[in-house]
Amino acid sequence: MILPQRGFKTSEYRQRTTRAQALMVAEGLSALLLTTEPELRYYTGFLTRFWESPTRPWFVVVPAQGDPIAVIPSIGAHLMGQSWITDIRTWQAPDYDDDGVGLLLDALQEVTTQEGRIGVSDQLESHVRMPRADLLRLEAGLAPRQIVGDAAITRRLRMIKSDDEIAKIKHAAGIADRAFDRVPEIAKAGVPLSQVFRQFQMLCLDEGADWVPYLAGAAGQGGYGDVISPATDQPLQHGDVLMLDTGLVWDGYFCDFDRNFHLGAPTTAVVQGHALLIEATAAAFEIAQPGAVIADLHKVIETITNPGGAVMSAGRVGHGLGMQLTEWPSIISQDMTPLEPGMVLTLEPSVALEDGKILVHEENIVIGQGGATYLSSPQAPKIRQLG
Amino acid sequence: MILPQRGFKTSEYRQRTTRAQALMVAEGLSALLLTTEPELRYYTGFLTRFWESPTRPWFVVVPAQGDPIAVIPSIGAHLMGQSWITDIRTWQAPDYDDDGVGLLLDALQEVTTQEGRIGVSDQLESHVRMPRADLLRLEAGLAPRQIVGDAAITRRLRMIKSDDEIAKIKHAAGIADRAFDRVPEIAKAGVPLSQVFRQFQMLCLDEGADWVPYLAGAAGQGGYGDVISPATDQPLQHGDVLMLDTGLVWDGYFCDFDRNFHLGAPTTAVVQGHALLIEATAAAFEIAQPGAVIADLHKVIETITNPGGAVMSAGRVGHGLGMQLTEWPSIISQDMTPLEPGMVLTLEPSVALEDGKILVHEENIVIGQGGATYLSSPQAPKIRQLG
Repeated sequence: MILPQRGFKTSEYRQRTTRAQALMVAEGLSALLLTTEPELRYYTGFLTRFWESPTRPWFVVVPAQGDPIAVIPSIGAHLMGQSWITDIRTWQAPDYDDDGVGLLLDALQEVTTQEGRIGVSDQLESHVRMPRADLLRLEAGLAPRQIVGDAAITRRLRMIKSDDEIAKIKHAAGIADRAFDRVPEIAKAGVPLSQVFRQFQMLCLDEGADWVPYLAGAAGQGGYGDVISPATDQPLQHGDVLMLDTGLVWDGYFCDFDRNFHLGAPTTAVVQGHALLIEATAAAFEIAQPGAVIADLHKVIETITNPGGAVMSAGRVGHGLGMQLTEWPSIISQDMTPLEPGMVLTLEPSVALEDGKILVHEENIVIGQGGATYLSSPQAPKIRQLG
Repeated sequence: MILPQRGFKTSEYRQRTTRAQALMVAEGLSALLLTTEPELRYYTGFLTRFWESPTRPWFVVVPAQGDPIAVIPSIGAHLMGQSWITDIRTWQAPDYDDDGVGLLLDALQEVTTQEGRIGVSDQLESHVRMPRADLLRLEAGLAPRQIVGDAAITRRLRMIKSDDEIAKIKHAAGIADRAFDRVPEIAKAGVPLSQVFRQFQMLCLDEGADWVPYLAGAAGQGGYGDVISPATDQPLQHGDVLMLDTGLVWDGYFCDFDRNFHLGAPTTAVVQGHALLIEATAAAFEIAQPGAVIADLHKVIETITNPGGAVMSAGRVGHGLGMQLTEWPSIISQDMTPLEPGMVLTLEPSVALEDGKILVHEENIVIGQGGATYLSSPQAPKIRQLG
C-alpha cells in the first residue's frame, strides 16, 4: 500500500491564503481572526492533538495582504516553527493577567486601519474559541475597529477539497473499510459491546489510523435507538443488529461511515430496511454531480427511505467531511448549495422500523466533473451477517 | 480487577445542581446557560463522543430553582432520555432558519424575570459553544435580561472531585500505567515513531481504555523539542529519549501523564535531568496538602528544576485533571488557589538540557485531608531503559 504524502506543499497553504484574501476584499474585510483547530490548521498546517486541552487560546490573523501571523502560547512555538508561518508571536500561557489578548490586539491593530472590519466565524457549526471575557476585552481594545462575521470565507474555501486533501480522506476511508472487514474477528454473541468498541478501535489503529477520534454505535434486537451513544457493557445477543460508526483520522483528515451487522439470520424487517438504505444511497450517488443542489440529494433519499415524510431525529441524511468529522453542507431540504467538483460528502440515510428502532447506513463520496466517486467501499443490499 | 461503577447516582447530579444553585443565589444569577461538553455532562450525565461533530449546538439551562432543562437537537433525545433530566426540549437540527435559538429563548424566559442575569462561562479555559451570530440573536431576544459571566460557579464545583469521580480517574491512570509497562513490546530502534504511537494506543485500549483522546510525544537524541507534536514516521534510534504522554478516558474521566524511556544506556545529562524531574515531583507531592496554595507547588518545583528562573515554554508545571485532559488550576506563580481535599492535579516539571532540548515528567495526584496520594505509579529517579 502506498501512503499519501503527509502534510501539504507550502504552495497549497499560500493558495488557500490568497483565495481567502481575494474573498476578504470582496466582502470588505480587513483581516480574519481564526481561533479554532481546523481554521488554524487550514491556513498554517499546525497539526496537534493538544487542542484536547481547553486551557490555552490559539490565534492566527490573516491580514488582507501579506502572510498570516500566529499569536500563540509559547508551548506551541517549536511546532509552529516547522510550518510555513514565519511571523510567530508567543506568550507564556496561561497568564492570568493577560492571556494573549494584548499581543493579539497589537497584531490586529498593526494590519488594519481604524475603519477595519475583522471577520470571525459566526455561522452554524462555528464558535469563537476564546474566553468570552477576553473577547469582550478584545472588542473594546480594537474600537473603532469592529469584529464582524467572516462571511463564511474559510467555510466556503474548505468545502472544495484539493486533490491532496481528497487523497488523505480516501486513505482514511480505506483504513476503516479494512477494519470493518475484520469485525467478525471481534464480535459474536456474548461479547460485551464495550469490548467490541475497544477492539474495533484497535483494528482501526492496526490498519493504519493515526488516531480514532470518533466511534459510536449500538446493538439491539431488530435495530437500535440512536447513533450517538457510547457502548454499554451489555453482551451481544443472537438476533442483534450491531452498528459501528467511526470517524478515524489519517494526517488530520477524517473518514466518517458506519456498517451494520446482524448476529445470525436477519428478520425480514431488517433485511428490507437495510436494502432500502442501500437503494437510497445508490440513488443519491447517481445524481450527485454538478448541476444538482444538496436538497436534491435529500429529496431522492427521503423519497425512498421516508416516503411519508415522518420527522427523523437525525435531522439530516448526510453532510460534508474533511478536516472535521462533520462539515457543511447539511443534506437537508433547506440546503440549496450547488454540487461542485471537490466536495466530499457523506450519504447517510436512516429508516424507522417498529418500536422506535432505526437503521442508519453511511458512505463517503467525492463529487467530480462527470459524477461522484465512492471513497468508502459501497455496500451490498444484504446486511452483513456474523456467526 | 474490579471496575468502578459506570455513571453516577442521581443523587450526585442533584447535589451538583443544588450546590450550583446556592452559588447562583450568592452571585445574583437567575440561571446558568451551559453550552460545552463537560458543563452539560457535569449536571446531566450526558456522555457521548458525538461532540466531535461541530454541527449542532447543545444547551442546558440550570434555573435558580428547579431541575435543569435540556434544549437539544432531536438526535440526542434518546440518549438524554436515559439521564435524570425529565424536561427535554428538542428541535430537528440543523435548522438554517432557527437552530434552537427560539426554543432556548423560551426556556430562559420561562425561568427568569425581566431583571434576570444569565451566567455563561467566561473565564480562562472556557468558551461559549454556539455560533456567534446566534449568541448575539439570543442576547437581543433576552433583553432586558442580561447574559453575564457565571462567576466560575461550575469551575469551582468541578475543581473538587467526589470519591466516585476520583475512582474513575484512578482507574484511568491504572490503565495507562499498565500500557506504559508494555512499551518495551512495541518500541525499539528502527521502529517508526508513528507506529509506536499507533501501537501504544492499542495497548491503552487493550488494558481497558474506553478511548484515547490524547497522545503526544517525541523521540530525540538527548531530549526533545516539545511535548505537543504528533508522531513523524522517523524510526527510533539508539540514543533516543522516547517520551509518550497520554490522556486516556474511562467512563468520561481522564488520566494525564507521561513516561520517558531511553534507547540504550542514557547519557549523564539525561540521567541527571530525569532524576531532577523525579526529585521535583516528589518535593511538590510532599507539600501538596491543605494549608498550601498552588503557587507553593510551583515554587518547590522550579527551585529544583529551574533555579535560574529561565522562561519555560510550557508556561506551567502542572494543572487540574478530571472530565477534561487539563482543568484549572494551573500550577503557576500567579495561582493562589488553596489546596483542598478532592482536588486532582498533575505535577509536570520540565528541565531544559543542551541545544533547546527538554525533558518533561508528569504524575497524577489527589489531595486528601492529611496529604496527597498518587493516582499514577510514581517513577524511580532512573529513566526507563529500552533494549
